[in-house]
Amino acid sequence: MIRQYYSVNEKYRKDTGQLNITPRFLFGSGPANAYPRVLQAIGSRQIANRDPQFVDLIKDIQSLLRYAWQTDNAFTLPISGTGRNAMEAVAANLIEPNDRILVGVNGFFGNYICEAARRYGAKVFKLKGEIGAAFSLSAIEAQLKRVRPKVFFLIHGQSASGTCQPMEGIGELCHRYDTLLVLDTVTSLGAVPVFLDHWKVDAAFTTGHRCLSCPPGISAFTFSERALRVIRNRKSRIANSTTDFSGLIRRKVSSRHYLYTLPINLVYGLREALQILAEQGLEVTWKRHRETAEALWEGLAEMGLRCPVHPDIRLPNLTAVDIPDTVDADRIRPYLLKEFNIEISSGLGDWQGRVWRLGLMGINSRRANVVLLLSALKNALAVHRRAFFSETAG
Amino acid sequence: MIRQYYSVNEKYRKDTGQLNITPRFLFGSGPANAYPRVLQAIGSRQIANRDPQFVDLIKDIQSLLRYAWQTDNAFTLPISGTGRNAMEAVAANLIEPNDRILVGVNGFFGNYICEAARRYGAKVFKLKGEIGAAFSLSAIEAQLKRVRPKVFFLIHGQSASGTCQPMEGIGELCHRYDTLLVLDTVTSLGAVPVFLDHWKVDAAFTTGHRCLSCPPGISAFTFSERALRVIRNRKSRIANSTTDFSGLIRRKVSSRHYLYTLPINLVYGLREALQILAEQGLEVTWKRHRETAEALWEGLAEMGLRCPVHPDIRLPNLTAVDIPDTVDADRIRPYLLKEFNIEISSGLGDWQGRVWRLGLMGINSRRANVVLLLSALKNALAVHRRAFFSETAG
Repeated sequence: MIRQYYSVNEKYRKDTGQLNITPRFLFGSGPANAYPRVLQAIGSRQIANRDPQFVDLIKDIQSLLRYAWQTDNAFTLPISGTGRNAMEAVAANLIEPNDRILVGVNGFFGNYICEAARRYGAKVFKLKGEIGAAFSLSAIEAQLKRVRPKVFFLIHGQSASGTCQPMEGIGELCHRYDTLLVLDTVTSLGAVPVFLDHWKVDAAFTTGHRCLSCPPGISAFTFSERALRVIRNRKSRIANSTTDFSGLIRRKVSSRHYLYTLPINLVYGLREALQILAEQGLEVTWKRHRETAEALWEGLAEMGLRCPVHPDIRLPNLTAVDIPDTVDADRIRPYLLKEFNIEISSGLGDWQGRVWRLGLMGINSRRANVVLLLSALKNALAVHRRAFFSETAG
Repeated sequence: MIRQYYSVNEKYRKDTGQLNITPRFLFGSGPANAYPRVLQAIGSRQIANRDPQFVDLIKDIQSLLRYAWQTDNAFTLPISGTGRNAMEAVAANLIEPNDRILVGVNGFFGNYICEAARRYGAKVFKLKGEIGAAFSLSAIEAQLKRVRPKVFFLIHGQSASGTCQPMEGIGELCHRYDTLLVLDTVTSLGAVPVFLDHWKVDAAFTTGHRCLSCPPGISAFTFSERALRVIRNRKSRIANSTTDFSGLIRRKVSSRHYLYTLPINLVYGLREALQILAEQGLEVTWKRHRETAEALWEGLAEMGLRCPVHPDIRLPNLTAVDIPDTVDADRIRPYLLKEFNIEISSGLGDWQGRVWRLGLMGINSRRANVVLLLSALKNALAVHRRAFFSETAG
């Protein structure tokens, strides 16, 4: 019999009571709110990862992910964690020490990718861009020509600014310079057209908790055959065990060998979220995001607020808006949270302190939320007008 | 406006219908079933990781983890993923290239830890043990003396065999040889006494989906002050971004900087699971696991089945049982799943094909389940008696 030896210390035996969370409207850069059907699904009783039912679940998800991404890629899988974990899995599998890697950097997450790639021993080159702007084809070509990278990491929906990178012609350039194209679709998938195969993308990743309206903790990634060939021909080992998919890739895709890492209940949720996307259809979903965004932008303009991103490349699901100098900026976000249970995001990197970021993603992309968000913002701006303006106005 | 350019391919727009999972009794090596309260909790509407409510949740979990582990460690945190991810986080933070690492290997997961450590550039030494046996103090001391490792990885509850490593005296030895002691409590926490501080453990990890009866996807790890000093004095960078806790450690523990990686709904679940453990109390929970196990072992003996692990070191939550040669072994597990919705585990490594592993963990550790499992097993063994035995018996 296993003995106890010591007496139990009761110091940390806290009674935390019943879970009692005030619901919030998640109108920031993400996570977004989840569909009620998704929340029901994740509360379902779990099965083990060796269950034949689990394999069927994964097959459903693979098909629905291919629909969402518009790709035929056989290697298309959910992965535990956030978009960062999915990015890490893509980077760890594609990068070997001393590889030349090019990263498009026009916001916070580009630098994060650079850092991740450096840890795998890559020689990292930046394609530098302005925050709030997209990369031109000629700028991309110039860097591809100069760097001749093995992999080019590009962010489709830039969450630091709410810009959407036009993709036409980039895949062709990457093929010409023998470069693998990796696309971050974390903030774009489900909101705007994404056509991985037409765009000749070799690897992509996304997450469940933005426009798919699944809770955080489950993400997804995909490799083209061209990317798989590169991984199969690796000379060095993958840098850490949890992101090593080489075995899975060599054996072809067998979800059975992979399932142990997956958070089963969030897999239920992702399946439900993707199913909702398929029921609505991609085009209807894109249209809904666009119409919601147009209503929001119109309302912001009426309030005299300026959106710094050009409408041609503005994401419909995440809008950067300049903070007017008539208000006490630091008070707005806590006020919205306290008074309206609304969360919005602050700026990041170069735009920190300059913009707020308003996200209406997935289930949140509805006219009712536009009215709610605009009214709350109007109230917040009125209450927190700066003293100087209050006095002159008063 | 963002344009579409291509028409949508409908090939993968599958109608997967409503989620319809047959519930299972998860009586294998894990995951175990979750408490209904935990499943309710994880279906709650999510909040964002910057929400003040989230910080309070983490504080609750930190306190409850300290209770479960019996430690005062300030650095005690949940982490996204399974026990492997928690192990990876511990290994990535503690190990630098060329460090000498000792791993106790008496089952499958020990080899997995060796492999993980090698990827971080460690010089890995094995303390080899028999599967189904524990390590003696003298064997441990001999290897510590010979290898002088920076870190010694030891598995408390060995899930390949269902053995429990006696811990008395090991921490003192590690201190004497200036070695950090890392303890894997994935399969032991919540089932048998764990006293990290009394045992002088420097880092530990566990997962939610075994004896805590939370679904998979959330785990936890903890560092002693002694371990944190080693991490603060690292010369090299941590090998990948998602496991880099050095910033958090340098700034002291501020959960705010860390929350972005956490699957919020599973955090709800882990809090609820730990709260249930605290309500029941550690000693009551250990007693329940022991009594359930004794009933199971008695029943197995009555059926003439042999448990290869000595009762002194046998885990009460996971029992290896020899497969009798009177049955068609390959048919038993699929039969139990199909006829009784019961999942049990096969053997691993050296015991593959020799044993089944029967797990009654957390909520599953109840007498009713003992009766159910024994009856089902009895039926399965009768139905799948080998032809030779059937004939002579007939």
